Amino acid sequence: MADTGTASATTPFSLAVDAMGGDHAPESVLDGLELAAERHPHARFLLVGDEARLGALLATRKRAAKVCSLRHAPEVVSGDLKPTAALRIRGSSMRVAIDAVAAREAAGIVSAGNTGALMALAKIVVKTLPEIDRPALAAIGPSARGDVVMLDLGANVQCDARNLVEFAVMGDAFARSVLGLTRPTIGLLNVGSEELKGDERVRQAAETLRDSAFGENFRGFVEGHDIAAGTVDVIVTDGFTGNVALKTGEGALKLMRDLLRQVFTSSIPARVGYLLARPALDRLREWMDPRRYNGAVLIGLNGVVVKSHGGTDGTGFAHAVDVAMDMVTHRFNDRIREGLGRLSEAAPRADAASR
Amino acid sequence: MADTGTASATTPFSLAVDAMGGDHAPESVLDGLELAAERHPHARFLLVGDEARLGALLATRKRAAKVCSLRHAPEVVSGDLKPTAALRIRGSSMRVAIDAVAAREAAGIVSAGNTGALMALAKIVVKTLPEIDRPALAAIGPSARGDVVMLDLGANVQCDARNLVEFAVMGDAFARSVLGLTRPTIGLLNVGSEELKGDERVRQAAETLRDSAFGENFRGFVEGHDIAAGTVDVIVTDGFTGNVALKTGEGALKLMRDLLRQVFTSSIPARVGYLLARPALDRLREWMDPRRYNGAVLIGLNGVVVKSHGGTDGTGFAHAVDVAMDMVTHRFNDRIREGLGRLSEAAPRADAASR
Repeated sequence: MADTGTASATTPFSLAVDAMGGDHAPESVLDGLELAAERHPHARFLLVGDEARLGALLATRKRAAKVCSLRHAPEVVSGDLKPTAALRIRGSSMRVAIDAVAAREAAGIVSAGNTGALMALAKIVVKTLPEIDRPALAAIGPSARGDVVMLDLGANVQCDARNLVEFAVMGDAFARSVLGLTRPTIGLLNVGSEELKGDERVRQAAETLRDSAFGENFRGFVEGHDIAAGTVDVIVTDGFTGNVALKTGEGALKLMRDLLRQVFTSSIPARVGYLLARPALDRLREWMDPRRYNGAVLIGLNGVVVKSHGGTDGTGFAHAVDVAMDMVTHRFNDRIREGLGRLSEAAPRADAASR
Repeated sequence: MADTGTASATTPFSLAVDAMGGDHAPESVLDGLELAAERHPHARFLLVGDEARLGALLATRKRAAKVCSLRHAPEVVSGDLKPTAALRIRGSSMRVAIDAVAAREAAGIVSAGNTGALMALAKIVVKTLPEIDRPALAAIGPSARGDVVMLDLGANVQCDARNLVEFAVMGDAFARSVLGLTRPTIGLLNVGSEELKGDERVRQAAETLRDSAFGENFRGFVEGHDIAAGTVDVIVTDGFTGNVALKTGEGALKLMRDLLRQVFTSSIPARVGYLLARPALDRLREWMDPRRYNGAVLIGLNGVVVKSHGGTDGTGFAHAVDVAMDMVTHRFNDRIREGLGRLSEAAPRADAASR
């Protein structure tokens, strides 16, 4: 399980990069790779898109040029294209990059393109891990006590107990790989923290986790306010609730930011007050910077799939590359398999101890 | 449908008040009634609890004394008591107050006591409206565009399409009665705003609402960020998602408040900055004051049931009384019945116009 440097040991390329996806692509993607090349000098990127345009952009980005190989793709999946339509465009930069992952030329893909299309293509072309029932969408966000992983954020609107347990295993692997935690704590999102709360689904998932080798780090049920409080490192929930919770939290923070902006421009003293408090406010802004948390991952597939926010800049895209590189370097899928093993290995112990 | 003043036309008392429930009861309750008496001089309250103690407190609260009648209840439902245990205490202030609603002595109840016990007692003693399948928990919160009603906040962890439709009808009646809106807009919480998003349940509920007389004010699917944005007046969702969303939003705002406190105490200039911006920041704080939004309601029962936050003070309790009085005055349950009528009346029209 020793790390083998930042380049993947088993594929020619660490990552395939969809150079044409995103509002400011390909410039933002290339800016991101220029930063990424500095942080991951041993990585090799397969840069997919309009060859002529990308070649010209690489000419002014020396570091990126050193770590990138170009592959031409004549088409682009537009942001509003339906996933079913995207599936039919075989020459898109997204598709060609995903094909490289499926062919094991690259260990993963990063794209700032159409989310629905990326998820559908990845599921169909890269395919789900045989050990996993359904892939999940995960992301990292800020909390009062450090970064928190949450999943599923919308890949599955309906989930059963088994899905939730697998999400816990994958979330644990993700927190180990990307947050570098050795023993991430796990919580199952529910409407109350008592054992009898919620529906059959969450109660059954909780029982399975409690009785497994994860029991030690499983903190049982957590509630909505525990997300921002950072009560646990990994928050597990179904895709419907997770999607709503993520967007509700983001919406609340956005409202607060908008109101603060109003406060600090409402009078001359308030403007002066803002200037005086600015260094501290800037630290707060930096801490909450969405670019730091850029990179939602579709996990549970035969390869690393990272979705960068479509509107991000080079700094944000580089963060998405960081997430993908962490997953490749730390052999994320091997960790999932280990986790699934811990789940079943422990079952006999739990059976013996059960009432 | 004309209002008949603030006293109920059909019951001797406008509201029964559980005087002993809540962290600071009975003082906070009496303080609240002193304020409420000023705002609702024609209301009559049945004050239930320890007669001797309440009598002494009323002696120093002249306004409350004028509008309150005392009824003795020797016991109190403690905050940590299980609902099943609370059901067995027939002499509790909560139970005696609820009994008064069931006996049609009072049009509703306000309690700051044990939420689970109040919900269970209300459902069993006051009973669900015959036209409604399941009662729901609703509350009002702040948004960028004014107050927003959200339900269900946790009364039902599992809901079908019919439940969601009934929640929409009840939420509409609530927004009319308490927010004073004549045509509240309604949105169904989902993981995306496109018609094909989500599960069968939300799609079916959306179709029913769209094809009914509510169609005009039904805005279709909304997402988590629409809650704080105030995109619609009434947000409808199942109790699991609603509970998580509410607590997630509250958690995010709390985190932001805590961080701002840190910012403004982090340096001398920041402290001075705070003092300069303080009037505007105080307006923001006042706008978000949880006491202004105190009063979650269990709706769909044969009487008005309002739960005040347990830790609130007199100002907060008075707000919960305001909510209950608005519901009594505006004959909330009649509005639900009207809404259910609009749901079915419109069905033939929708059939005629359907593809």
